[in-house]
Amino acid sequence: MEDKVILLDFWSSSYAMRVRIALEEKGIQYEAREQNLVDKSPLLVDMNPIHKMIPVLIHNGKPTCESLVIVEYIDQVWNDRSPLLPSDPYQRSQARFWADYIDKKIYTNGKKLWREKGEKQEEVKREFIAGLRALEGELGEKVYFGGERIGFVDVALVPISSWFYSFEKCGNFSIEKECPKIVAWVKRCMQKKSVSKSLPDPQKIYGYVLQLKQKLGID
Amino acid sequence: MEDKVILLDFWSSSYAMRVRIALEEKGIQYEAREQNLVDKSPLLVDMNPIHKMIPVLIHNGKPTCESLVIVEYIDQVWNDRSPLLPSDPYQRSQARFWADYIDKKIYTNGKKLWREKGEKQEEVKREFIAGLRALEGELGEKVYFGGERIGFVDVALVPISSWFYSFEKCGNFSIEKECPKIVAWVKRCMQKKSVSKSLPDPQKIYGYVLQLKQKLGID
Repeated sequence: MEDKVILLDFWSSSYAMRVRIALEEKGIQYEAREQNLVDKSPLLVDMNPIHKMIPVLIHNGKPTCESLVIVEYIDQVWNDRSPLLPSDPYQRSQARFWADYIDKKIYTNGKKLWREKGEKQEEVKREFIAGLRALEGELGEKVYFGGERIGFVDVALVPISSWFYSFEKCGNFSIEKECPKIVAWVKRCMQKKSVSKSLPDPQKIYGYVLQLKQKLGID
Repeated sequence: MEDKVILLDFWSSSYAMRVRIALEEKGIQYEAREQNLVDKSPLLVDMNPIHKMIPVLIHNGKPTCESLVIVEYIDQVWNDRSPLLPSDPYQRSQARFWADYIDKKIYTNGKKLWREKGEKQEEVKREFIAGLRALEGELGEKVYFGGERIGFVDVALVPISSWFYSFEKCGNFSIEKECPKIVAWVKRCMQKKSVSKSLPDPQKIYGYVLQLKQKLGID
């Protein structure tokens, strides 16, 4: 039986981009179905009744939710090519630790960065930068977090770089100035087709952020 | 070489209890080192420089942090006995999904339950109960979340039951009345030595909560 893989997707979601990169890295054919996140489709509600959020991976009819859970699932099912997690238990645990860190410190603060203002925004910015600096420490002199090739932590982190331009414009700072090693690493990742193909244009994201800000009444 | 396993521990932490249960389930000899969370030890800061939090598992000198990451690590290293995660990739992803859900909806709201007051507390209570009810749905007619034996989701959830008494007293509600299936499941888990040995007395937790409330100026 041929695998049928459907991704319930949304173009600007960094979480969904993780799944796209993993699928591309593995060379898996899939159908991306763009979702309406305001008026949610019966399919989305049916496939993710708990959170009703994208991304959802539907593999031969069976749904998996939560981006990092999906990426691990993809890595285990298609384990004959492009491994994302190391096989050594200790290295594996360290990769999971950092992916969790990225969720807690980078994604969460990123979401706040463009919504907050004044002192609150400054605080979020400081935490966001501190988080990226800790990741610079973990990256060290490696090409990728995964070493010589892209791995779980790279897949977890690189999508948010498509939002960097928006964060910089909204927060009035330069990520390249604060964290040059991260920006250099983003550029290396973007040379991979699996990444560049999966990430939208940062300018387009910024246009979307401006729309959202207007809608939410944030000037 | 014999394994040397040290747990940087704190008696009332549900996160640390997860690790204790996993170690007990696997029958691993370990040394628990109770930590001072106010005046943190150089060992804790050295072993978890990023979060400086317990639990930390130090296995032959190498630290792993974050409770669910540690439990997965234990399950993979000592994979010859008492498996916690299913081997099937799909079932495995579902277990990870629910463990993540427990972190986001149960543990996070649990922490707020005894700190908040008034309408805010009522809101947290509603979310907490809704979370447990979703878990009741997932449990269904099974003995444990893991099926016939205790698994990853059971290990993730059962520790917080040692805080239920405190939540009930602070929030003025009955978890048994709201979620009888969860409470029946807790009782089944407590018949297992790995669980009962790892969880503190709920009354002792409540005494600790009262102390914390006083210290934080919450009446």
